[in-house]
Amino acid sequence: MSLLQKAWKLIRLRKDRERVVVLGSGWAGYTVARELDAKKYQAVVVSPRSYFAFTPLLASTSVGTLEFRTALEPIRTRRTNVSFFQGWADGVDFKNRKITIEEAVDDPTSSLALTHDRHAHQTQEQRQEERKLEAKKGRLFDLSYDKLIVTVGCYSQTFGTPGVKEHALFLKDVGDARKIRNRLLACFEAAALPTTTDEMRRQLLTFAVVGGGPTGIEFSAELHDIITEDLARVYPELVPFHKITVYDVAPKVLPMFDEKLGKYAMETFKREGIDIKTSHHVEGLRPGAPGIQPGESDEHSVFTLKIKEEGEIGVGMVVWSTGLMQNPFVADALNGVNGTPKTLEYTGAALQEAENGPDSISWKVKKDQKTGSIMTDSRLRIKLTGDNDNNPDAILKDVFALGDCAIVEGTSYPATAQVASQKASWLAKRLNKNDMEKGGFKFKNLGVMAYVGNWNALFQGGEGSNISGRLAWIIWRGAYLTKSVSWRNKILIPMYWMINWIFGRDISRF
Amino acid sequence: MSLLQKAWKLIRLRKDRERVVVLGSGWAGYTVARELDAKKYQAVVVSPRSYFAFTPLLASTSVGTLEFRTALEPIRTRRTNVSFFQGWADGVDFKNRKITIEEAVDDPTSSLALTHDRHAHQTQEQRQEERKLEAKKGRLFDLSYDKLIVTVGCYSQTFGTPGVKEHALFLKDVGDARKIRNRLLACFEAAALPTTTDEMRRQLLTFAVVGGGPTGIEFSAELHDIITEDLARVYPELVPFHKITVYDVAPKVLPMFDEKLGKYAMETFKREGIDIKTSHHVEGLRPGAPGIQPGESDEHSVFTLKIKEEGEIGVGMVVWSTGLMQNPFVADALNGVNGTPKTLEYTGAALQEAENGPDSISWKVKKDQKTGSIMTDSRLRIKLTGDNDNNPDAILKDVFALGDCAIVEGTSYPATAQVASQKASWLAKRLNKNDMEKGGFKFKNLGVMAYVGNWNALFQGGEGSNISGRLAWIIWRGAYLTKSVSWRNKILIPMYWMINWIFGRDISRF
Repeated sequence: MSLLQKAWKLIRLRKDRERVVVLGSGWAGYTVARELDAKKYQAVVVSPRSYFAFTPLLASTSVGTLEFRTALEPIRTRRTNVSFFQGWADGVDFKNRKITIEEAVDDPTSSLALTHDRHAHQTQEQRQEERKLEAKKGRLFDLSYDKLIVTVGCYSQTFGTPGVKEHALFLKDVGDARKIRNRLLACFEAAALPTTTDEMRRQLLTFAVVGGGPTGIEFSAELHDIITEDLARVYPELVPFHKITVYDVAPKVLPMFDEKLGKYAMETFKREGIDIKTSHHVEGLRPGAPGIQPGESDEHSVFTLKIKEEGEIGVGMVVWSTGLMQNPFVADALNGVNGTPKTLEYTGAALQEAENGPDSISWKVKKDQKTGSIMTDSRLRIKLTGDNDNNPDAILKDVFALGDCAIVEGTSYPATAQVASQKASWLAKRLNKNDMEKGGFKFKNLGVMAYVGNWNALFQGGEGSNISGRLAWIIWRGAYLTKSVSWRNKILIPMYWMINWIFGRDISRF
Repeated sequence: MSLLQKAWKLIRLRKDRERVVVLGSGWAGYTVARELDAKKYQAVVVSPRSYFAFTPLLASTSVGTLEFRTALEPIRTRRTNVSFFQGWADGVDFKNRKITIEEAVDDPTSSLALTHDRHAHQTQEQRQEERKLEAKKGRLFDLSYDKLIVTVGCYSQTFGTPGVKEHALFLKDVGDARKIRNRLLACFEAAALPTTTDEMRRQLLTFAVVGGGPTGIEFSAELHDIITEDLARVYPELVPFHKITVYDVAPKVLPMFDEKLGKYAMETFKREGIDIKTSHHVEGLRPGAPGIQPGESDEHSVFTLKIKEEGEIGVGMVVWSTGLMQNPFVADALNGVNGTPKTLEYTGAALQEAENGPDSISWKVKKDQKTGSIMTDSRLRIKLTGDNDNNPDAILKDVFALGDCAIVEGTSYPATAQVASQKASWLAKRLNKNDMEKGGFKFKNLGVMAYVGNWNALFQGGEGSNISGRLAWIIWRGAYLTKSVSWRNKILIPMYWMINWIFGRDISRF
């Protein structure tokens, strides 16, 4: 196909539709891209992942209750009309309405939790040099947009705790779940070797979960389930050596649940033998057993977790599920605004400034002071702020931000999948109907859920109804089955639940 | 548990059963270990893999027709009574009846085709030093046996072709299948980038399969299926760029099938647009496009395949499915015999030698001169040969060898799963009934099958019946479903066949 033909084809595909570029493929980005009316908009997703990960099921996949792919939906499908480029957003030009993309087809961090800026090791000058080279190689390219939707999400925050980035496992993406499953089974296999001492066995089978939010609690519960239901049958002699402990700096876990449900969770965990240690502080993680210097120790052996209140503990695996770090793209690329975009709408003080000509103001993206999140108005449009004494505000009418990287100014909705997907559906509907001015986004709390192990769960409805135990577990499973996206997964998920209940979870490791 | 308690436990577990150590977990090892009577024998499998791979389904998993785990069975299960240590056999002491094991819990080659001796980079002295260190760390340990069954299989042979070990993909284990699936999808994703030129697109989507045996043919057929059935729908603009070519040095492919079936396969492939190039010789494989020196080129870009008859071709992926190399364990560890084992039975010339006392002879394991395979008698017991002029023969009555690493002296059974599993079942039965002398092993050819794409297959029955097309495909699917081991997989396999037929194969890449 010649270049001319190709240009023709893009025009033909695009017809007279507006191009909506969506950065990110998480709850917000995937939802809005799918729900946009393909007759009106050409949706183009740009993301380093070729799939959407159904995050609430990742804990289940990390122990094999579900197969990994049941928590994934590919962005490209037969049935939807969404275009896709696998890449990182690398820069935005609001004035000329185009973004720069760094392709990520072979990105080594693909499918893993992100813990640091991938260009952090470079100076700004080095990065600029690299960008030129990448552009020459075709690895960096521009894409124009009519509307831009920023849903790049957050990175995992390790609070600078030494060794955590390098040696802890996370639970943000499917590659993380895969690493956890492999490591868990490797710990049992290593403990089963005849030369492993009982002390080493105990350390290999000590699992620490850092963070007492729903993810940490659900993972601990699933871990307890696979150990007692499956591993106990194939490694009966090893099960007495295992220990699961949840650490949290806060004085209580599951803060989003009311006291009664929190207490139920604590009691369930106690019965299951899972320790919850609140007001505990992780100070570091390093390879090797306590008391042994790195280098002396065995390669596949244990890690030493340092807890302020307890000292050093030998552990087989640390799963880190706490803390959000602002996305470097939001911190760096979405900062200063070059020139004044035509689609700016002035509000408040800015209205007066407009008389002087908007070009007199140097604009930047307005952010939350504490979290660094992008501030939007109630229509999810990003806000700019001017640098002069009047602190003028403005709204960029063609750029939206939602998901964990953004907050609606004046609200404090939590950084959850529920908020992200509600915002996404709201935005798609407004864009499809072209009635943005009708009214702002309002979050409707549909309740929170958490699995606590042994077929028990917590459910706290939006209107305050509290359910715990087996019934909550049925609601939990029913809700995730209903919410899972494709028919394929709606069939596979209950299939795996049933098969693993009958035959046990698969423990092949590869 | 104290050391004494542990010793007690092993004795208690063992009761008065003989310990049968099985080296390897392929078709031969997995089958014999499962079929041994747990009342009579304590079966202990030693293998670097914690699972058995149902190899005929690997090609299906490599394109997502089946999920990876449907081709795996964990060695440890709830239902069987097989012990397992994850490790490499590192040495055998026939006289004292013990083997040395190098643990392999975190082995980086785990689940991948083996192409070279993992200690090849070391001199014998270096390896001896390392062994001492490993023994000290508990990573090398001895295990005694009453009976030993050697089923270590073969490695993949690359015939020293430059770059093949490093850059080709194989199809011997589930990790290989996973790499192929990821690479295939990455090629399409890279080709979809707007900056990829049409020339680069054509190279990225050129797939070369080396080897026209059943594995190479079935993989090509499955690859053709996913491209035309699934990728054509999500990347419609890219499909015209793709090309699949099968290369073989021999003048024809599928030599085990009779002419009519071979012709049917060739015609089917022709209709599907797959090229078969017989009498072609691969001379090398390197990263980078033809005409571009390595280093200049892009990281994730294409490879250059050099064919004697065609010159250099740019390809996105080379799948190598030809050639068996003798296992280094067989070549090195199973060679000279230290001292004279008590369980030696002399045959032929050795009978006379025995009068002089067996210790006068220096024994070594008898091997096939051409392939280096272990020679066994018709009872699958390994043969030793003496070093003096009479070339005395002897049989080691408590050591068996089967699978791809062994042949029955005087036969030429092919190195197939069928031969391996028949030998394994025969041996388990003889050991269970303790009637080894009843009669030797005889192979019963149950026929050969190959999938050729588009719901067509070949089936050549043991008694010469030939079937091709849709009916053969039904036989093909039926046979593998029947032979798949666990109920879990017997349910999951048809489930995935159905779901992928209805919804298409999953193209998420992680």
